[in-house]
Amino acid sequence: MPRDPRPEFDLIDWIRERSANRPEVVLGIGDDASILAECPGQQWVTAVDVLMEGVHFDSQLSPELIGRKSLAVNLSDLAAMAAEPVAAYIGIVLPKLRGREFAEHIYKGLFDIAQQFNLAIAGGDTNTWNGPLVISVTVLGLVSAGQGVRRAGAAPGDWLFVTGALGGSLASLRHAKFSPRVTTARALAQEFKISSMIDVSDGLSSDLRHLVKESDVGFIVEAEQIPIHSDVDETAEFEDRLQHALTDGEDFELLFTVNANDGTRLAALGQIQGVSVTKIGECIASPDLLLRQAATIQPFPTGGWGHLF
Amino acid sequence: MPRDPRPEFDLIDWIRERSANRPEVVLGIGDDASILAECPGQQWVTAVDVLMEGVHFDSQLSPELIGRKSLAVNLSDLAAMAAEPVAAYIGIVLPKLRGREFAEHIYKGLFDIAQQFNLAIAGGDTNTWNGPLVISVTVLGLVSAGQGVRRAGAAPGDWLFVTGALGGSLASLRHAKFSPRVTTARALAQEFKISSMIDVSDGLSSDLRHLVKESDVGFIVEAEQIPIHSDVDETAEFEDRLQHALTDGEDFELLFTVNANDGTRLAALGQIQGVSVTKIGECIASPDLLLRQAATIQPFPTGGWGHLF
Repeated sequence: MPRDPRPEFDLIDWIRERSANRPEVVLGIGDDASILAECPGQQWVTAVDVLMEGVHFDSQLSPELIGRKSLAVNLSDLAAMAAEPVAAYIGIVLPKLRGREFAEHIYKGLFDIAQQFNLAIAGGDTNTWNGPLVISVTVLGLVSAGQGVRRAGAAPGDWLFVTGALGGSLASLRHAKFSPRVTTARALAQEFKISSMIDVSDGLSSDLRHLVKESDVGFIVEAEQIPIHSDVDETAEFEDRLQHALTDGEDFELLFTVNANDGTRLAALGQIQGVSVTKIGECIASPDLLLRQAATIQPFPTGGWGHLF
Repeated sequence: MPRDPRPEFDLIDWIRERSANRPEVVLGIGDDASILAECPGQQWVTAVDVLMEGVHFDSQLSPELIGRKSLAVNLSDLAAMAAEPVAAYIGIVLPKLRGREFAEHIYKGLFDIAQQFNLAIAGGDTNTWNGPLVISVTVLGLVSAGQGVRRAGAAPGDWLFVTGALGGSLASLRHAKFSPRVTTARALAQEFKISSMIDVSDGLSSDLRHLVKESDVGFIVEAEQIPIHSDVDETAEFEDRLQHALTDGEDFELLFTVNANDGTRLAALGQIQGVSVTKIGECIASPDLLLRQAATIQPFPTGGWGHLF
């Protein structure tokens, strides 16, 4: 194909040539919209995240890692539904001054993680302006019909688990380099009955409130059981370290519930596919969020990331 | 449900309470992702558009019209595939200083047009920052399997049509108030064999090049047949008026091809469901874009909207 003399469409051609395909994508980049195949027995799952320079990343982060993170946070949303990622759509607003090469580096980061998860880049929208970089990613995945795991579904007596460890993600580069728990979630959902699930993006203390709200239950969390990431200063006091684990956010780990029988089995395993799985609490009937530390039970601290007006 | 004390999630609750549902949306706002129903015999069609303050609208435009336009341009993409709109996902980046009320007015504009086209708001992402307003909309629609109309498919001898009239959309408020040609496109696709279609967003002279590229054909367009919108100064010279019709963009009309038999039938009708339909040219085998004016045939002028680096 000859090069398009128009910069916007030449970049779109460059993206199109480098985008992997999947049989579920009948028509990808290059039309007014994409077309997805019928997938009998399966349901499409859709998530959208918008990432902005100065909020979700700064100009210190390499363009490859910015691109990578933009897609990774969406994959984490699909993981939280136990869905298989299939296609991504990239809406990008590029700062004019940083030019075409900067854009290509962002897409390289996007392509790398897309390839890792066998994801097609099936469309998007390419824009330029004089403002900061904005990337809006929409991902579509598939679940067997009726098998998508929701925030609603936790029941009193269920055990609360978290994958990996929490805290210190922003101070390290983990917020951009983390591995979305896609295969972990699918393995968990295959071997256990996950009653509710969410990914930890705003911080445990904030995201756990979503399970309370949607499942209409409460939780007692054991402070000493919360796995604190080694990215959190290990020389600090426990209270400080706990605060980081509860409120830093951008952990992109899975927070989920299973019944006590499955919980016993899972706690005995302690990991799934090499990713640690830790019981941190139990589900209660009253819609309260409680933290037990030593012999004291107190209301959960507020905090965690949230957009203000 | 009690009000969420966190501003971001209280706004999401406000949106969720006001969002219409559709049976195809099994799970909408309030989880990590939405879940769509299996729709046997149909395929999902997906389009994304990002609109930025200072580029696609300015602060003179009311927040209701900004919201309306953000969704309307996506509906125009679905129309260009002859798809039925089903669900929209709103990724929004709100300027902190303009506050919650400004956001509600944007969503009112979004809800109005969503209701008009029986569209569910099924998810999104809500953010704030100190920068300008950015709205990224993803729409999903349905077509009968194999019936999505593409940019590829025009054949030599086909007739080229356009709905409505072109030019002057930006100088008037038409670029925000236009009616996406969703029902027109579906009526056309039902009654005629549409061989290729695109919506006119960047301007006829730019968008016609996409049909050339994807269909691997050319076109001879009759300058005097191009319907020029009354928004273009009627007292100006024909050459000036023609230039506006060719390059202003943001017309959001349908540009499409049918075979000569169907074309004869459609040209005789002159309209479909009250929307005018005009033959403006014919498809040729060589990949050239030609404009005939009086007795002269010349290459098509370049121009139209395109993002630069």
